[in-house]
Amino acid sequence: MALDTDQHATTTDRREERAAHRGAPPLTADVAGLRAFLDGPYAEVRDEVRRGLADHASLLDEDVDLSRDELRERVRDIVVGIGGTGQAAHGFPPAHGGGGDIGASVAAFETLAYGDLSVLVKSGVQYGLFGGAVQQLGTARHHDAYLADIVAGRLLGCFAMTETGHGSNVQQLGTVARHDPDTDEIVVTTPDDTARKDYIGNAARDGELAVVFAQLEVGGERRGVHAVLVPIRVDGEPAPGVRIEDCGAKIGLEGVDNGRLWFDDVRVPRDNLLDRFATIDEDGEYRSSIDNPDRRFFTMLGTLVQGRVSVGGAGLGASKVALTIAVRYALRRRQFETEKGEGETLLLDYGMHQRRLLPLLARTYALTAAQEEVARQLHEVFGADTPDADDRARRALESRAAGTKAVTTWHATRAIQEAREACGGAGYLSANRFAALKADTDVFTTFEGDNHVLLQLVAKGLLTDYSSEFEDLDQFGMVRFVAGLAVDTVIERTAAHQLLERIRDVLPGGRDGWDQEAGLLDPDYQLAMLRYREEHQLAGAARRLKAGVDDGGDPGVVFRTVQDHVIGAARSHVDRLVLEAFVARVRALPEGHTREVLTALSDLYALTTIEADRGWFLEHGRLSAPRSKAITREVGAIMRRLRPVARDLVDAFGVPEDVLGAEDLIG
Amino acid sequence: MALDTDQHATTTDRREERAAHRGAPPLTADVAGLRAFLDGPYAEVRDEVRRGLADHASLLDEDVDLSRDELRERVRDIVVGIGGTGQAAHGFPPAHGGGGDIGASVAAFETLAYGDLSVLVKSGVQYGLFGGAVQQLGTARHHDAYLADIVAGRLLGCFAMTETGHGSNVQQLGTVARHDPDTDEIVVTTPDDTARKDYIGNAARDGELAVVFAQLEVGGERRGVHAVLVPIRVDGEPAPGVRIEDCGAKIGLEGVDNGRLWFDDVRVPRDNLLDRFATIDEDGEYRSSIDNPDRRFFTMLGTLVQGRVSVGGAGLGASKVALTIAVRYALRRRQFETEKGEGETLLLDYGMHQRRLLPLLARTYALTAAQEEVARQLHEVFGADTPDADDRARRALESRAAGTKAVTTWHATRAIQEAREACGGAGYLSANRFAALKADTDVFTTFEGDNHVLLQLVAKGLLTDYSSEFEDLDQFGMVRFVAGLAVDTVIERTAAHQLLERIRDVLPGGRDGWDQEAGLLDPDYQLAMLRYREEHQLAGAARRLKAGVDDGGDPGVVFRTVQDHVIGAARSHVDRLVLEAFVARVRALPEGHTREVLTALSDLYALTTIEADRGWFLEHGRLSAPRSKAITREVGAIMRRLRPVARDLVDAFGVPEDVLGAEDLIG
Repeated sequence: MALDTDQHATTTDRREERAAHRGAPPLTADVAGLRAFLDGPYAEVRDEVRRGLADHASLLDEDVDLSRDELRERVRDIVVGIGGTGQAAHGFPPAHGGGGDIGASVAAFETLAYGDLSVLVKSGVQYGLFGGAVQQLGTARHHDAYLADIVAGRLLGCFAMTETGHGSNVQQLGTVARHDPDTDEIVVTTPDDTARKDYIGNAARDGELAVVFAQLEVGGERRGVHAVLVPIRVDGEPAPGVRIEDCGAKIGLEGVDNGRLWFDDVRVPRDNLLDRFATIDEDGEYRSSIDNPDRRFFTMLGTLVQGRVSVGGAGLGASKVALTIAVRYALRRRQFETEKGEGETLLLDYGMHQRRLLPLLARTYALTAAQEEVARQLHEVFGADTPDADDRARRALESRAAGTKAVTTWHATRAIQEAREACGGAGYLSANRFAALKADTDVFTTFEGDNHVLLQLVAKGLLTDYSSEFEDLDQFGMVRFVAGLAVDTVIERTAAHQLLERIRDVLPGGRDGWDQEAGLLDPDYQLAMLRYREEHQLAGAARRLKAGVDDGGDPGVVFRTVQDHVIGAARSHVDRLVLEAFVARVRALPEGHTREVLTALSDLYALTTIEADRGWFLEHGRLSAPRSKAITREVGAIMRRLRPVARDLVDAFGVPEDVLGAEDLIG
Repeated sequence: MALDTDQHATTTDRREERAAHRGAPPLTADVAGLRAFLDGPYAEVRDEVRRGLADHASLLDEDVDLSRDELRERVRDIVVGIGGTGQAAHGFPPAHGGGGDIGASVAAFETLAYGDLSVLVKSGVQYGLFGGAVQQLGTARHHDAYLADIVAGRLLGCFAMTETGHGSNVQQLGTVARHDPDTDEIVVTTPDDTARKDYIGNAARDGELAVVFAQLEVGGERRGVHAVLVPIRVDGEPAPGVRIEDCGAKIGLEGVDNGRLWFDDVRVPRDNLLDRFATIDEDGEYRSSIDNPDRRFFTMLGTLVQGRVSVGGAGLGASKVALTIAVRYALRRRQFETEKGEGETLLLDYGMHQRRLLPLLARTYALTAAQEEVARQLHEVFGADTPDADDRARRALESRAAGTKAVTTWHATRAIQEAREACGGAGYLSANRFAALKADTDVFTTFEGDNHVLLQLVAKGLLTDYSSEFEDLDQFGMVRFVAGLAVDTVIERTAAHQLLERIRDVLPGGRDGWDQEAGLLDPDYQLAMLRYREEHQLAGAARRLKAGVDDGGDPGVVFRTVQDHVIGAARSHVDRLVLEAFVARVRALPEGHTREVLTALSDLYALTTIEADRGWFLEHGRLSAPRSKAITREVGAIMRRLRPVARDLVDAFGVPEDVLGAEDLIG
């Protein structure tokens, strides 16, 4: 193996460094233009929420001095107070006091994430999960009876799905809802402690009504998980037969009253079954428009996808707050003299500090574009004026929502942590926002679907090409299915020659030279790289699953062994979707300053994504060593171009000054 | 460029997967043997602390229900209570109630990190920073006057170094200590708000005496930063001329009373100067045994290196608690069926879950070996029976302490976060330890030296070959120095041919084929890889610095541009030191179960470290694509071998059951 030519590398580095100083023309940023890009079609909705946030910004300072109960009360008052306003009601039908615009409701929720996150999450429980379940799973009589009160914040409720024993595998929940033909009631029972409802928001203190997910039993036959409305609290006391326990202190979100629920043969009228997809008729017969019980279950779950879309957007909102503080601090804080007589140097003028913050900033922009795309698809599939979308579009949406939620919430954890560290000791004080940002967002990677489980769901969609008859979450089923049926399709679809044919049409060099001849800053090159990785990993995972089973391996063991490969393919898929969304949005812009700045951000996101996995691209012959090094140099050059507009990049997020609350850091 | 041969890769994967199941002989773990390895020479000291921890374990449950002031009081009582015991006093001279054993004091502190971290940090402030400064910077009269009371916990104090305006660049502190010849006093003054002392532990509530770092002025001349003892509180009230402010709520460590201090011309006797390295004589003349003021300053700072060693060890202790909980949870929690009829699968039987936890476990073992090595060197350099070590040994120790602190505390942040996520929603409740572990350790990456600044210090030592006359932290000085003097030495020392000559002696294949022919599990191969990367990066950084300055670039701008390369080289250096320490310890063991298990852990640490940066090795011709892929497969195989002994691996940490406090998770 040839020795590396050190001298050459150094000469190249020097040339690059000089070029960077002569360099490309300086970028000029137009904050309003960037804001318009980020805010997208719902700029006015976002501005309304921004104004609303300022009204209760004082909570952000006061929360540390309140007891848990005082804090919960403050948060409840705010959540009730925004009922019926543009901060909470956009997604509901106009007939019940809503705005009838799902896209607007997601935009509002994302922006609400700039403020106190207990308010955000409790709103999400009330108006998103609880209200959304009544709306999506219920029928007219439920809507008429409850929606107006829910939307207005007069009736607070819970979304009681998760159990202690089953968080991810919700198809195996233990709670039972048995139809009693003698009284024509539904009897809800918690058979044992693993089936207690756990971590349920609004349960410990405020909720009166719960959407309880339980195994429905009709005429002695189990029908799978269904949702039933159960009153849990009357005049502030637990309803008869309901036991409630407080989950107690948590890492964060202390303003949300999470609790546990047990049901001791609680009887509710038959009408309390949320029966959009399945009902019990007057004769006590179970009837459903969907025959296959798995398909029925996943259809029900699928209607709740807005929760995932919302959490992803909220994670992004929180990242924007953290990065705004860290970038502004780095443009104010000086430490160590580097040029004689120039005084100490601004943190953001250090190469390492740029490396820490600017790629995270670019990724935040990229994920915003990806988030907008998933919200757009949600609006299209669930929008009031759209007839029921076909199954395939729904599944593609579910997959995209799952993947986007996973990458945005991991990004939030990482960006907030890096921003905290980049503010040193000052970042550790609660007077600044990091304490709450870190603690409150920590669970985003877990709730509304554990991120690893979600990526597995994405992988499954890819491996089955969304063609499976039902989307069971059961891993064993997945292995059987893949091994038996869809894998040949996947392998054919992802065959390298097909991809390369497609690439030939868009890139110079064609199928044999594209990865050498295309410019690093050509978005088609960047996209081709991410697509190549995705399809290659997917094909490899499919072949390993099939081969393992063909060899007579136990399918479960085969699956567990290949699992990280499967999840890796899903991550690569999401990376590609994110870049595709960002590039498409940037390409649609007119020429000008805003497009130039966003192009630099898009390049930075694309190249740092490739760079982070350059080991893979080198292993698979899609990067040569010199080209791989050139990417790293290019990343440095782009960061130096972006440095002068860094403040504009965070100003464009439009986090209200009132909620930044980090006076010591940002002055 | 050749297309990747998919089919071949799959065949290899299949062969590997089959081999893994037939595989290597199963590992057998002996918890006592592993414990002996981890506990090292101070097993009894650690066991004494383990027993002590159980005595106040109840604080871990109660803390969430206490007000901040109640919590601080509980923590103070515990910290005072352990005064004079083996939990706090090992490092002080026997004449003043200590044990006279620095190594023992570090071991005790590391183990104390299994318990409440406010207790740990407040102990560290009292017995480590405050007591340590009096001991190391003071002379006999200070020792006689204060040490016995400090060691016994009767006199609580502060280490008042950091200021709002200067955390990392402490040579530029703003506080002034002026000698007044008329009264023969020292007058301590805070000239402005940027010079207020900030984040000072023990300041807000309990401290009576502070070691204040200030610019000493004698006879009208500035002499650089020195330490002065200043009473700050009398009978619970601020001393005259001292203003104290509470830092208020923090992300964590709420049991520690961090505060701010202002001095308004506070007068103390001349004798209050801690004058081991410089004094003011009776005639008001400044005298020091060290002429060069920079050298004097860094000599003083150098005596405080134990703080860094201790924080690194504490980060490791906290990681061990988190990983113990996560691994035990993964051996108890089941989710999803993967084998028909086998019930749901244990989390740790999923490949992805192994990927998340087992490399972190291996890294924890490796870092424990590295931490023991730095503690051993500390003990040797500062041990009572050692004559003053030479400057070079001190600098090597300071560099090793800085680097080890950076990697262990980053590891803590990452391992604790991954462990939390691996426990799902249950991990989010404060009833489990993650809330406190996350929040309390968060600042470890910042205090006792910001990790990035510390790695720069490491890089500086490497670039100057520890040969500079003084270790100034000033970046500009570093650039000048490197450009002018030492860089040729560095380039010569790191020349590839020299390294390869050395490698030829230990590896098959010699200088041309070693990286192809050596076995992946040969520690000499693994070490050669890490050493090659380190020396290559170091030489590259040196050349870039020199070339930039030779080209007439502004040295400050050159440095800032090359900074991430410089820091990268330091990280690579620390990676190599860690593996070296681990391999050396394992090699010293007799053949047997314990050595086999530790060898697997050492391989896992080494190969995941190479794998994580395989892009670099591929770029620089030190890994071929097939060999790079083989490393990933080998990592999978090692994890499957370690899976059956995972419980033993965490049991060996010896975290007392009483302080694990995660009953819901671990049963």
